[in-house]
Amino acid sequence: MIYFDNSATTKIYPEVAEFICKHSQQEFCNPSGLYFPSLQVKQEMQEAKQKLLKILHATNKDIIFTASATEANNYALRCFVNKNKKLLISEGEHASIYQTALYLQQNQVEVEFIKTLADGTLDIEDLKHKLTDNVGLVSFIHVNNETGAINDAKKIGEIIKEKCPTALIHCDGVQAFCKMDINLNDLGIDMYTLSSHKVHGPRGVGALIFNSKTPPKKPLIFGGGQENGWRSGTENASSILGFVMASEIMQKDMARNNMHVRNLKWTLLELIQELNFTINGSLDKTISNILSISFENIKGEVLVHMLEQDKIYVSTGSSCNSKHTGNRVLMSMGKNKQQEAGNIRISFSEQNTMEEVKEFANILIKDVNKIKGLEIWKK
Amino acid sequence: MIYFDNSATTKIYPEVAEFICKHSQQEFCNPSGLYFPSLQVKQEMQEAKQKLLKILHATNKDIIFTASATEANNYALRCFVNKNKKLLISEGEHASIYQTALYLQQNQVEVEFIKTLADGTLDIEDLKHKLTDNVGLVSFIHVNNETGAINDAKKIGEIIKEKCPTALIHCDGVQAFCKMDINLNDLGIDMYTLSSHKVHGPRGVGALIFNSKTPPKKPLIFGGGQENGWRSGTENASSILGFVMASEIMQKDMARNNMHVRNLKWTLLELIQELNFTINGSLDKTISNILSISFENIKGEVLVHMLEQDKIYVSTGSSCNSKHTGNRVLMSMGKNKQQEAGNIRISFSEQNTMEEVKEFANILIKDVNKIKGLEIWKK
Repeated sequence: MIYFDNSATTKIYPEVAEFICKHSQQEFCNPSGLYFPSLQVKQEMQEAKQKLLKILHATNKDIIFTASATEANNYALRCFVNKNKKLLISEGEHASIYQTALYLQQNQVEVEFIKTLADGTLDIEDLKHKLTDNVGLVSFIHVNNETGAINDAKKIGEIIKEKCPTALIHCDGVQAFCKMDINLNDLGIDMYTLSSHKVHGPRGVGALIFNSKTPPKKPLIFGGGQENGWRSGTENASSILGFVMASEIMQKDMARNNMHVRNLKWTLLELIQELNFTINGSLDKTISNILSISFENIKGEVLVHMLEQDKIYVSTGSSCNSKHTGNRVLMSMGKNKQQEAGNIRISFSEQNTMEEVKEFANILIKDVNKIKGLEIWKK
Repeated sequence: MIYFDNSATTKIYPEVAEFICKHSQQEFCNPSGLYFPSLQVKQEMQEAKQKLLKILHATNKDIIFTASATEANNYALRCFVNKNKKLLISEGEHASIYQTALYLQQNQVEVEFIKTLADGTLDIEDLKHKLTDNVGLVSFIHVNNETGAINDAKKIGEIIKEKCPTALIHCDGVQAFCKMDINLNDLGIDMYTLSSHKVHGPRGVGALIFNSKTPPKKPLIFGGGQENGWRSGTENASSILGFVMASEIMQKDMARNNMHVRNLKWTLLELIQELNFTINGSLDKTISNILSISFENIKGEVLVHMLEQDKIYVSTGSSCNSKHTGNRVLMSMGKNKQQEAGNIRISFSEQNTMEEVKEFANILIKDVNKIKGLEIWKK
């Protein structure tokens, strides 16, 4: 099996899976209990929060652990929005931001969409234009999940704070976390979203970092008042600790991992240069582990299914994208229908090897040529 | 360690923890992927849904897996409410229903509260009185989490359907599931909430069963459209499968488990009869594993902390209850301040032993007498 769909999900680190298995059995008490074993779990969760904030170089920030980055993104928009002010999001957002913004729009919140440039990054000129006095919240993606395009979060943050000093800034950091240095103090943004299962942590954990000075206006989920009243429901302690453990492992080796996956990407590009494809985005503004390419006159979906005959797994884009409505992010970059339909996303992890890349390149060339040799293609 | 707080959370079955550990590593692909290993996980989730529906004898029902029963309860009210009609909930609801109803009330939904009888069950006469034509949704708890009081769900369902045929009925089954026979077809209710970690399953999974004919009006969490668009966020497949596995194990041994925990409860009551306490609720209308008692002039919280010196863990009520506002459920039963403050909840699981009960009884008698011997008590 060659797994090149690490932006969809990563394989959990074995030591993290083992830790969760053990911890969930040994320290099973409800963190909201009044007695010592409960308080101990609560203490561990507090320490985990501090570890996570340290990785992000964040002071004066707090964390709400959620069940997914999707929930964290919903939280960021719905519980921090000022209903009397404008919400700005970029066109290149993940579905969890985009669909939530549409929901808010249907509920009397004024929403505007910032354009995307051809390289997949947010159009800063368009942002400046839309940063009017009445903007209350801006949300943008740090690294796009379809193309890997990196937004200059610091620059964007500075521009927003300069033009709209009171606006809150949320950044979806799911594809950036543990893949680039993130210094939240320096970035000047208020909220930041993380996902556990994108960094070899367990499924079912996300996090929303927020500015302690600007806590949420209301919870997203109501009940017993766990997580300081910000998110009710018995805390998923073992998985949360497993997430932070995975983050620390991945962050520690980040420089080496990046070198490795960048090498895999460049080798792949060299090996398949005989094929006729375009790169979606600009390589120098793209995260090291993602490569989005489009073939002419070949449907990405067909290619995905051909590749899986050889147990090679890539995707046609985000798993969180509807299969029926086309790729919104690629279309926002000005890609034509053919480029959009011909797209595959290859996303590496540090666990992938050069041998896998070589095998993949051979099979990809074979498959693409096979499709091109079909009668239907010649018409 | 003597753990008698199984209504707060249960210890995960070792085989379930091991299964999740293995499954999350071996079948790690994103269930929304287009390729075979993803479809396989999706298929397993479908089969798990069918298994769960079978346990509940439910046809024409569907399931939304959530991250907690709290989320499922929020979902049931917020996504099934008819904003132009009245929402009825009982006073004895879990915080996740009660607080959500208060939130809806603040948002222009008319909410009424059904009274609780002295035995902790819902006041059926008061329900009848409040079942006016404009009721759109009724939510009640099957087994109360504080007292174990069992509501007659079938009778309540029939009364509601007779007086308000178009009203939807939601029942919070968290403390009933795998502890009593539940036949959803027979009960005539539309929605039912389950929690994984109350049946020796993993933390981080809940479920909302709903009538296929009356799907939710909108999702609670927006995004990539997972779970048929009803709940976005990458599916926590391994934990969901682990939850269903735990349910099947517990359900299979239900009759034997119930016999055992009932025996533990009655033995305990006999052993501590020399103490001066009242039982909150009526034993013949209480679930077999829960015992809520109140001591005169003794604070439950003090007793909890004394007991934990001997590594005995009980609670003062729901972990999902604010420690500062008193016990809403006991007060709704007409308990006075002293009874409410003097409450402890003892909740067994089939893993508890008669030896533990005997040891607990001895220590409880010693601790209660110790508190009563203190000067402060004599004043």
